[in-house]
Amino acid sequence: MGRFVKSFLASHALVLLSVQAILVIVASRVLSLVLRRLGQPMVIAEVLAGIALGPSLLGVLAPDTFQVLFPATSLPTLGLLSQLGLVFFMFIIGLELEPQLLRGLGKSALLISNVSIVVPFVLGVTVAIAIAPHWASASVPLMHFALFLGVAMSVTAFPVLARILSEGGLIHTRIGALAIACAAVGDVTAWCLLALISALVKSSSLVGAGLTVVLTFGYCVAMWFVARPLLAKLVRQRTDRRGISQRMVAATVVLLLLSALATEAIGVHALFGAFFFGVIVPRDGGLAHGLRERLEDLVVVLLLPLFFAYSGLRTQVGLLDGSSAWLTAGLLTFVAVLGKWGGATLAGRTSGQSWRDANAIGVLMNTRGLMELVILNIGLDLGVISPTVFTMMVLMALITTVMTSPLLVLLRPKQPSASWSTSDDHARDAQSPAPGVVVPS
Amino acid sequence: MGRFVKSFLASHALVLLSVQAILVIVASRVLSLVLRRLGQPMVIAEVLAGIALGPSLLGVLAPDTFQVLFPATSLPTLGLLSQLGLVFFMFIIGLELEPQLLRGLGKSALLISNVSIVVPFVLGVTVAIAIAPHWASASVPLMHFALFLGVAMSVTAFPVLARILSEGGLIHTRIGALAIACAAVGDVTAWCLLALISALVKSSSLVGAGLTVVLTFGYCVAMWFVARPLLAKLVRQRTDRRGISQRMVAATVVLLLLSALATEAIGVHALFGAFFFGVIVPRDGGLAHGLRERLEDLVVVLLLPLFFAYSGLRTQVGLLDGSSAWLTAGLLTFVAVLGKWGGATLAGRTSGQSWRDANAIGVLMNTRGLMELVILNIGLDLGVISPTVFTMMVLMALITTVMTSPLLVLLRPKQPSASWSTSDDHARDAQSPAPGVVVPS
Repeated sequence: MGRFVKSFLASHALVLLSVQAILVIVASRVLSLVLRRLGQPMVIAEVLAGIALGPSLLGVLAPDTFQVLFPATSLPTLGLLSQLGLVFFMFIIGLELEPQLLRGLGKSALLISNVSIVVPFVLGVTVAIAIAPHWASASVPLMHFALFLGVAMSVTAFPVLARILSEGGLIHTRIGALAIACAAVGDVTAWCLLALISALVKSSSLVGAGLTVVLTFGYCVAMWFVARPLLAKLVRQRTDRRGISQRMVAATVVLLLLSALATEAIGVHALFGAFFFGVIVPRDGGLAHGLRERLEDLVVVLLLPLFFAYSGLRTQVGLLDGSSAWLTAGLLTFVAVLGKWGGATLAGRTSGQSWRDANAIGVLMNTRGLMELVILNIGLDLGVISPTVFTMMVLMALITTVMTSPLLVLLRPKQPSASWSTSDDHARDAQSPAPGVVVPS
Repeated sequence: MGRFVKSFLASHALVLLSVQAILVIVASRVLSLVLRRLGQPMVIAEVLAGIALGPSLLGVLAPDTFQVLFPATSLPTLGLLSQLGLVFFMFIIGLELEPQLLRGLGKSALLISNVSIVVPFVLGVTVAIAIAPHWASASVPLMHFALFLGVAMSVTAFPVLARILSEGGLIHTRIGALAIACAAVGDVTAWCLLALISALVKSSSLVGAGLTVVLTFGYCVAMWFVARPLLAKLVRQRTDRRGISQRMVAATVVLLLLSALATEAIGVHALFGAFFFGVIVPRDGGLAHGLRERLEDLVVVLLLPLFFAYSGLRTQVGLLDGSSAWLTAGLLTFVAVLGKWGGATLAGRTSGQSWRDANAIGVLMNTRGLMELVILNIGLDLGVISPTVFTMMVLMALITTVMTSPLLVLLRPKQPSASWSTSDDHARDAQSPAPGVVVPS
């Protein structure tokens, strides 16, 4: 690189940040042009772009350029903006959660979602205990390591799943609705588990962890039974006017930050507070929809790519040297798939689905996507997992997400059955592409 | 403050940033509840909130709390996010500029806008030369100091003016249209002047400055004659679909950052590139409108307040000790008002307006608002003005902006004349509040 470019990049933090943002946005959009034709969701391209720009690829191919583009000194800034982006992203995820999905759950959805958390959780804890002597830091208590890996195994990517289903035209089918309901329950459960583990790790004593649990419970009760009705009342008073004012957006941002600060102060992660605040925002009056519309684009287009770059910088495939490391990565992936896919399939079959349908639900629940990355970053920040285990788990998240669309295509019946068809399926089948094979928009 | 709060604030950069954002958002919204009843625009509340949270008030009243809430170590982060926010804000300002406003200009608008830049510029340069021995740093060439103060004097706050006019119901009157057209021309001119001065200050030699000017001209030509038609063509190809996709937002963000990087690399400020890119985005096809809708809220609600906090932290009213400093601040304000108000009024009268109407245009053009703050921060960053002169000029910006609404109320005729009335004025006058007296939304 020329001298001018080097000194220009170092001249102002904004210059470097802009270049980093441009690189990761362009790289992930270009990658997605290819990957979306293969039926892969956008998040795969984004994660791969992040990894490619990190020490795993760019750092190996062009170490000098890598040092100039992503110097270690820029990590704190990227980390801060990632966190800020994630706070807003988790809030949007919370907004997307339709509470009626959870309310209208049949017995089968409840059974499936519970089993598809418990089975991978137990398997994750077991495999964590098995690999801990080799791969956990000596300073981390075995219980923390095992519990964290258990939670990390049991995550389902609610937003990615929703996108795969809607891109494949499956969101309004019975199978799609069942899967998304299970994922929603799973999301909430996984975050609560993570909150518990964060509490355990952060407070040095069991008493401290107990206090955190009590406070978290108190926070949830206060949000649900006090903040939620108050907000609903406020919003109803303002529904005479169409749209939402900037003042309401400002109030939302302040409350969102306060909620995130509250959970962070309690000892669980700020992201939990952001997510939970999204859940309690009233759905009527167009507020939830309007907020999504106004916040989503800048967050998804500008801030999330920085998170992918940040995660990519922390993913070092080079750390997996030797067959032992790769075998462990393979084992983790195998266990993750076995627990989630197998567990959900068995539960689905037990609750009366056909094998094919149960299998499809298993495949869908096995999607890890972005959520896994978020949780893994928290684990790395807490020091519960090492950069090596972080890298193994990122690969697991990638593989399980990549699997979903092709497997769905294989499973989809040639003649639409009742559970795979929407009301307008016959009209659409004539022209629509195969499910999972997405025409880029 | 309690120990827990202190260590919590220092625990994570995101925590501190969130608290700072909450403080400045809440402070400015609360202040605006009072100020808007007095007919003052939101920006006054925001600037005052920033100053109040800075060393001028909070730093004096509660130095310990101030140190914990706004430690010097947090300045770089606030600065970076301010800059990022301003890049998007200037882009939105560029988007708001309607080119047809400039095209349909009568002779009077052109005359007024030119005179209302030249007069304050010349007065500003003159007063700068007069006060330089006392208030300019010895290391700054007199020419730089004088030229910068000239530009800083000749700024009109295009966005604030637009908001004052629309809040007072004047935006569709002939006077309002004339004022907004003049401000638009003034905006572009002032930014070009600033670009020239940045070039002069940043390059050590006249040759370097000349090169920057040539490159800037080349950049503008390329943007206007190459990028603008290309963009328009691209947008036309996509107008078959309603709304804009996230891919288009991503492309816009990338191009915006590239444009900002280009001007920064050339040697003028990144904000100029952001602004100019906004100007060339095609207006048809709903793109400009859609982009504003999707970017504006997060920028205005979250990132701009951080800019106000940042500016407030750099405004130290305590630096104005002694009558000489306050007299100078008063002189600067007097000259700014004289040049802008006086110049525009005379030009308006010369071009055939009544004294009352010419006076109203003078009052409107005298609004400095947020633009002044942006330019002053650039001057402080470049080292052209000292923190003391920065503070003086911030006060000038505040006073000239505060003046506008009350003076407009005084000037507005009791019986609407032709130039002050809209087509539905008679219907509205019965219930609508006095102009400038805004019912909070």
